[in-house]
Amino acid sequence: MDYLEVVFSLKSVIANNDTETFALVIRHAHPADIAAAIAKLNLEQQCRLLKLAEPAKRAEIFGYLSAELQVRIANAIGRKPLVELFLHMSADERADLYNDLPEDQRDTVLPALAQIEREDIRRLAAYPEDQVGSVMTSDYATLAPDLTAAAAIEELRRIAPDTETIYQAFVIDRNRRLIGTVSLRELIIAHAQSRIGDIMKPSPVAIKADAPREEAVQLISKYDLLALPVINGGDMLVGIVTYDDALDVEQQETSEDFHKVASVGALGKSLREASVWLLFRKRVFWLLLLVFGNLFSGAGIAFFEDTIAAYIALVFFLPLLIDSGGNAGSQAATLMVRALATGEIVLRDWAGMLLRELFVATLLGLSMAVAVSSLGLWRGGPEIAVVVAVSMQVIVITGSVIGMSLPFLLSKFKLDPATASAPLITSIADALGVIIYFTIATTMLDMSVLEMGV
Amino acid sequence: MDYLEVVFSLKSVIANNDTETFALVIRHAHPADIAAAIAKLNLEQQCRLLKLAEPAKRAEIFGYLSAELQVRIANAIGRKPLVELFLHMSADERADLYNDLPEDQRDTVLPALAQIEREDIRRLAAYPEDQVGSVMTSDYATLAPDLTAAAAIEELRRIAPDTETIYQAFVIDRNRRLIGTVSLRELIIAHAQSRIGDIMKPSPVAIKADAPREEAVQLISKYDLLALPVINGGDMLVGIVTYDDALDVEQQETSEDFHKVASVGALGKSLREASVWLLFRKRVFWLLLLVFGNLFSGAGIAFFEDTIAAYIALVFFLPLLIDSGGNAGSQAATLMVRALATGEIVLRDWAGMLLRELFVATLLGLSMAVAVSSLGLWRGGPEIAVVVAVSMQVIVITGSVIGMSLPFLLSKFKLDPATASAPLITSIADALGVIIYFTIATTMLDMSVLEMGV
Repeated sequence: MDYLEVVFSLKSVIANNDTETFALVIRHAHPADIAAAIAKLNLEQQCRLLKLAEPAKRAEIFGYLSAELQVRIANAIGRKPLVELFLHMSADERADLYNDLPEDQRDTVLPALAQIEREDIRRLAAYPEDQVGSVMTSDYATLAPDLTAAAAIEELRRIAPDTETIYQAFVIDRNRRLIGTVSLRELIIAHAQSRIGDIMKPSPVAIKADAPREEAVQLISKYDLLALPVINGGDMLVGIVTYDDALDVEQQETSEDFHKVASVGALGKSLREASVWLLFRKRVFWLLLLVFGNLFSGAGIAFFEDTIAAYIALVFFLPLLIDSGGNAGSQAATLMVRALATGEIVLRDWAGMLLRELFVATLLGLSMAVAVSSLGLWRGGPEIAVVVAVSMQVIVITGSVIGMSLPFLLSKFKLDPATASAPLITSIADALGVIIYFTIATTMLDMSVLEMGV
Repeated sequence: MDYLEVVFSLKSVIANNDTETFALVIRHAHPADIAAAIAKLNLEQQCRLLKLAEPAKRAEIFGYLSAELQVRIANAIGRKPLVELFLHMSADERADLYNDLPEDQRDTVLPALAQIEREDIRRLAAYPEDQVGSVMTSDYATLAPDLTAAAAIEELRRIAPDTETIYQAFVIDRNRRLIGTVSLRELIIAHAQSRIGDIMKPSPVAIKADAPREEAVQLISKYDLLALPVINGGDMLVGIVTYDDALDVEQQETSEDFHKVASVGALGKSLREASVWLLFRKRVFWLLLLVFGNLFSGAGIAFFEDTIAAYIALVFFLPLLIDSGGNAGSQAATLMVRALATGEIVLRDWAGMLLRELFVATLLGLSMAVAVSSLGLWRGGPEIAVVVAVSMQVIVITGSVIGMSLPFLLSKFKLDPATASAPLITSIADALGVIIYFTIATTMLDMSVLEMGV
């Protein structure tokens, strides 16, 4: 049953209070599709349909709804159903919802939960959004090293209904220190009486709870993990990050980087849900900064006003030359931003990348100088052609080196490299481009005037 | 044992032919780290170390090496070891290597393989790189619907060593048509004598082998799948895409989109490995196109040369105004490119997005008009201030609408929306900006001259 069939069926369920069709939908459709269909209804219908599902399924569907809709529904269903929902949600989704609820609702829900769940929610909800702790879950399987493979499989079977993944189990010592991992595949293949301590993978890949969440994604991707164990300062296991949460984080982080490179602030929600006002606020900052940053290129133009007045044909090439610096710089910056984000290059690669960039930019500058000099010849004669060709070469190299270095510099000062956005580089390249162009023009054209004996 | 320890240990293995240390590394280190350490050595050492590992482990480590290095080693180890490697590699990695090998080596390897493996390689290697078929594997578990849960677990245990994932099994009928999926978790929880047909999830999410590979990533992410079944035109199961391959595809596709938006062509390899010449070729196209695209803005400037000569202060605002159009346009374009790539918006959302963009761009234009008019007042007096303010408003709206619509237009004509790169939008915004600015300037300044009675 696909999404459109779900939408159609749910309409009939609402119209006719048709619980049989609803049971069919629950059995044959994916919770993600049911959630997407429910999101299209009004609040009263949403609450009514969710109430029809049994608690575990309800919590699963609820988990696929957007954060905003979750809060709206949590507000509407009343205290007792909300507590029941909390009990059945997965630990990480529950903590996220808790963080999104208004203060007064947190205070009504929390006391109704058992001590152990209260602590779990408080603990998971305490991590800042950019840290590993905020995307980890506490629904994982632990095993003792002296268990047999057969007993371990029995234990995994027992906890399977309430555990995020049973395919990867984590072996801990008496102090909850992580000492190994073992997969259900390995347990199944192993001899029934083998000890976990002998078949586990010792010294497993793990991450600290306060590490940046992108690093968890990088580790999961690099080592093809199903679940990455999260440890605290004392090497004690405190949670896991599962592959599906990693994929979500990867997509969110990537969207943010995309937006930053285009100088749009983090939206914090999907583009579809973003309001006019939110989009305005996230876009206006860099655009306004550019207006004032442009004072520098304006000052440059003002300084060279005499040269411009004398050779009005120079204006013809101005947009082209300064844009070229900005474009070459944005290319270089984006290549670095992405490679730094994926961990493909690190801070100390700067010198090597700079050397290569110098070669690349020289070649780019040469090609563009040849192209622009033919335009120069046509529009302003041989002197202008030489001026624009030389300017192009210098501007492209300057723009490229700045664009390439800026992400490293930002990263060095613990700032997000993606802040090296196209408008920022455009502003810098504009100001430098104006100065380079008109300095070269003034020098060369004055010289040629002198040579002509004036 | 982490990466640096592996590097250190392997050096000692090479120096002293120390096979005991090597066994220790194999047991305690992750194949990805061993591969990364091996990649740093010379070819002779690489071959020597790989030979020390037993065939299955060797193939696993080999699978983590870069495509280029794989080909180099395949060239060096000789025919028989290469055939052995092929036999132990996973089906998808094997097909990728086959595609990368030179013609003559393919011809030496293929005849040495069994009929069934030959066909499998030919089939997987036949899909174009952008289709789902190119990232799927044929190492998956199938079950018949009339099997019991206990028998199914036994079957999964039997095939576990050679199968990419046993956690998700695919239920097929006599004609290999996909009729359901069942997870190992469900099998373990189920009563031993339950039939697969009763516990499986019917009508599972699946994808056609010739669909774009990004769609597989979107499905895996949306439905939190471990493995996505791939079917042919007749609904027959032909392969699966696993979550870890999806994460790799996501990262590759994202890097390509990043590069495209910054007008860099697809590198086809990591930034670190890219040569000066490759980077030059991938960057020069759009930059050169911009040079010639600039003929249009140049023609605009030439057309208005008299106005410029009369009001040289107008030049001051030229870079700022045309850049603002380009920047606002790039913001809008990037937002759309990313949302189209993640499937968050689709082609038919254009009208709704356009309406919202008009509001956002009007607000942006107003803010920037206010900012630039203060500069205008300072540099050129009230007339110039009005001219630049009105121009800014019109240019920002024009740039935004074009930037926002271009990705939809490209998508409509089956082109990649990410081609709506910053330089492309800059070129268009430049030309339109020049025309808008000087048209408004000529009209308003002429009018004010008339009003003053000249």
